Amino acid sequence: TYFNEGVHLEYKPIHFKTRFRFRMQNRFTYETQDTEDLSAKVADFNVRRMRLRLDGTVWDPRLLYRIQLSFTRGDMDYDRTQYPNILRDAVVGWRLTDTATIWYGQTKLPGNRQRVTSSGSQQLVDRSIVNATFTLDRDMGAQFYQRWGEDRPFWLKLAVSNGEGRATDNKDNGLSYTGRVEWLPLGAFKDEGDYFEGDLARELTPKLSIGAVFNANKKTTRPGGQLGTQYTTPGLNRDLQTWFLDAIFKHRGFSWSSEYANRWAHDPVFMDGAKEVTVFKGQGITTQAGFLFDNNIEPSVRYSQLFADKESQAGSANNQKEYTLGLSKYFNRHTVKVQTDLSYDELSNSVKDTYRSYWVYRLQLEIGI
Amino acid sequence: TYFNEGVHLEYKPIHFKTRFRFRMQNRFTYETQDTEDLSAKVADFNVRRMRLRLDGTVWDPRLLYRIQLSFTRGDMDYDRTQYPNILRDAVVGWRLTDTATIWYGQTKLPGNRQRVTSSGSQQLVDRSIVNATFTLDRDMGAQFYQRWGEDRPFWLKLAVSNGEGRATDNKDNGLSYTGRVEWLPLGAFKDEGDYFEGDLARELTPKLSIGAVFNANKKTTRPGGQLGTQYTTPGLNRDLQTWFLDAIFKHRGFSWSSEYANRWAHDPVFMDGAKEVTVFKGQGITTQAGFLFDNNIEPSVRYSQLFADKESQAGSANNQKEYTLGLSKYFNRHTVKVQTDLSYDELSNSVKDTYRSYWVYRLQLEIGI
Amino acid sequence: TYFNEGVHLEYKPIHFKTRFRFRMQNRFTYETQDTEDLSAKVADFNVRRMRLRLDGTVWDPRLLYRIQLSFTRGDMDYDRTQYPNILRDAVVGWRLTDTATIWYGQTKLPGNRQRVTSSGSQQLVDRSIVNATFTLDRDMGAQFYQRWGEDRPFWLKLAVSNGEGRATDNKDNGLSYTGRVEWLPLGAFKDEGDYFEGDLARELTPKLSIGAVFNANKKTTRPGGQLGTQYTTPGLNRDLQTWFLDAIFKHRGFSWSSEYANRWAHDPVFMDGAKEVTVFKGQGITTQAGFLFDNNIEPSVRYSQLFADKESQAGSANNQKEYTLGLSKYFNRHTVKVQTDLSYDELSNSVKDTYRSYWVYRLQLEIGI
Repeated sequence: TYFNEGVHLEYKPIHFKTRFRFRMQNRFTYETQDTEDLSAKVADFNVRRMRLRLDGTVWDPRLLYRIQLSFTRGDMDYDRTQYPNILRDAVVGWRLTDTATIWYGQTKLPGNRQRVTSSGSQQLVDRSIVNATFTLDRDMGAQFYQRWGEDRPFWLKLAVSNGEGRATDNKDNGLSYTGRVEWLPLGAFKDEGDYFEGDLARELTPKLSIGAVFNANKKTTRPGGQLGTQYTTPGLNRDLQTWFLDAIFKHRGFSWSSEYANRWAHDPVFMDGAKEVTVFKGQGITTQAGFLFDNNIEPSVRYSQLFADKESQAGSANNQKEYTLGLSKYFNRHTVKVQTDLSYDELSNSVKDTYRSYWVYRLQLEIGI
Repeated sequence: TYFNEGVHLEYKPIHFKTRFRFRMQNRFTYETQDTEDLSAKVADFNVRRMRLRLDGTVWDPRLLYRIQLSFTRGDMDYDRTQYPNILRDAVVGWRLTDTATIWYGQTKLPGNRQRVTSSGSQQLVDRSIVNATFTLDRDMGAQFYQRWGEDRPFWLKLAVSNGEGRATDNKDNGLSYTGRVEWLPLGAFKDEGDYFEGDLARELTPKLSIGAVFNANKKTTRPGGQLGTQYTTPGLNRDLQTWFLDAIFKHRGFSWSSEYANRWAHDPVFMDGAKEVTVFKGQGITTQAGFLFDNNIEPSVRYSQLFADKESQAGSANNQKEYTLGLSKYFNRHTVKVQTDLSYDELSNSVKDTYRSYWVYRLQLEIGI
Repeated sequence: TYFNEGVHLEYKPIHFKTRFRFRMQNRFTYETQDTEDLSAKVADFNVRRMRLRLDGTVWDPRLLYRIQLSFTRGDMDYDRTQYPNILRDAVVGWRLTDTATIWYGQTKLPGNRQRVTSSGSQQLVDRSIVNATFTLDRDMGAQFYQRWGEDRPFWLKLAVSNGEGRATDNKDNGLSYTGRVEWLPLGAFKDEGDYFEGDLARELTPKLSIGAVFNANKKTTRPGGQLGTQYTTPGLNRDLQTWFLDAIFKHRGFSWSSEYANRWAHDPVFMDGAKEVTVFKGQGITTQAGFLFDNNIEPSVRYSQLFADKESQAGSANNQKEYTLGLSKYFNRHTVKVQTDLSYDELSNSVKDTYRSYWVYRLQLEIGI
């Protein structure tokens, strides 16, 4: 038994290693009625995330496993799916070579960078509206990861998966195909810092990673592909195509990251029985930057915008702009921190000619190992 | 790794401590048709509670966390809410001083004593009907605890919380405000014995704690405030006010505890769509006493009564009397015990002129660490 | 802390022992349209099972506990019950003598052998269609186990339980009564090998176990007794009677096991509100054999057949035949293995004169400790 970013147990005769971690995020949200009336539309305390994790090896140092359980209403996507989805990760890996691994089971797809970056490693209170709208999230399937090069690493990440998201009742033959490439032209980040936000590793030389993703999801039965309420009409489905471009840059406490997203679907507004469903067809951009001071306080800014196609706006999709100012204090890197942010949001719909703007304030404590 | 009322792990460099505990309660219930026909209306084996707990500190000895998960149908309040509420506690604390602590997240509100006393520390098989009807239960929010004095401790416990209970989908601006005071005029109980029932610590001198609670819950969307099925009509809510007085006394194996409860709501019977909802407006009293013999066998008695206002009786609320005789055998204090009790129940409604009486027998094994 | 088929913790002063284990099964299933059109009707990646287990003793070496939690959609029987049933085992035992134990709580009933054999100890990817149709599964109640004899052990296993399965909302007075006997005329199996499939213990002398089960389930409110969607009509229930005969034989790598099942119910097709319910009244047989080579590769075969009574066929029950060829590679006995099987299925209904045949291919990785 020892401790190192989690509680470790080892039993060498069968190459058994396990690491146990937990974390929770306790949040307060205050949303105003609009930008003139600043009284509360919503005042809400929320345990946003509560997670338990196990990972390690068993039988052979090349045989990997990773388990993650989640227990809050938000964690379980309960309000979007009406299903209590506790299981996040349940995946087995096999290290083929030092640079190639295959994974089998349920885990995150190699989608947009902010999604693959743990919710516990964000520099703002939560991910952007672009991620919420376009993310490929988690899915059940097989993945292949390959890295080439040491000085200027290039990654290829491929996945074949159900395309129905985690633990959906999948009864069709339509799968989902995902490819992601990453290029790090200035070398690897310290401590795998391309997958946490904020320059907590304090890069002494500039570091950059550029990524691109393509996903084709055949016959998916949820409006977001892997997310949203499953359609109840038997045989109702849509093919989705989603593109992402993303980049992250870090140097001496400064960090900048950006994403572009694009989703296409044929006929994105349709009826599921008596209920109208809208697939978000359109584009999104998000960009954010932060600077980490020596006292581990980091101010940050973010701008995000969603562009919904006219077709989707005729359904329930809207255009959205979000401007955010954030402040984080890191006590033990990302595992113990306090974060707060203030956002100005504009929702508009050019088809229905509607408009709403409001402020959202959030305060969050994160604690874990 | 060591054991002391749970399995402990420590890692000093980051002040990490954790304690793991579990417990389960396996119960058999036999309810008669009425007091003349003693044949079974219900014969039921039930895993009433099954809990896993983690608590400790991380990063700073003043930074506390507490996590509790529950897995049975009753634990999750499933039949009352149709939502699988696994998460019980997920709360972060900060010890401001030796006598003051703030908590943030989801945990029990400082309500009536019997509710705050763990279900694993009761001297009868379960809590009273007064607790079931009036308890403030758990909620998400912020709490402040302050103690004054050593010889005659006085506690102030304050909470601001959603008022919608654990993990409800909260979308409004109405919060809940709770205040509790406690006075221990004869000094502190051994082993914090004011928060377990039965004089297992065997107080050599008389000990007494007196408590009072006030709660104002604004715009709650569940009939019990933090409990009950959430209303489906958007915007439907009620303001509730709840009062409690409670006391516990222990001396040389004898223990006595009592509670008075009072709830007020404007217009307590109303329609939620096609469904009639009743808020229990009225009062309740419960009193119980036990004597712990040297062989750790404790006989006990309880009397509880609910007084529903005429308004609530016109809905689905009833008056109720319950007389209970209990017997417990403690093997390892409250963590390993066998408990049994026999109750005589009378339900009556003076508005509808209905009456029913019946017997309930219960047998329970509790096991845990 | 030590490792031996799980992570063990001990604390002797209170005779506390606990063992922690986990396991998951990640599966891919390909089902053809029929036997002529081999294109995919279903192509599905699935985390079939993900389990956490704790078992041990506390306070007295005779006082046992066992807890098992499950987290996948299939594990929770979600699609059959619409209830997230995480809790599998929560049971307390008391070792009366070296050969007699009583259990109290929720766990598997002493039903057919393949059901009581862990899903992690099967020689094919999953249990047979006979088990799926007739199994008594888990239930809440009390059980008594007694063994007589050492050289030719004879087991008696009795249970009284709710008869409504795990964590169902049980409100009636009808219980379920189960009796199982087992006889091992050639002596005990190595490593309790009568409860895992495949001769992984490599019996040097022939070993045989013969079992018989009778279950009478009074007033059950689910079509399979302990399984299926609970009826919504108050007071609607059926009495079920189920019989099993089973046997397992092992010798020098060869293993053979078989089961016969028979269920009887009065009036097995009926209305629950607007929904027709069918209780499977009829019989089933399954037989399978495998041979374990020295390299721990085991080919196996299985034949299973369901005979539905005419009454049940008039509802939604069908006759079914299934022929399966399987191949397993065991790395660390049953805890780390790869399994694959190919089945040919025929469904027919002589009342409705329908027929369908198709192929199913499955590939599964199991990993655990």
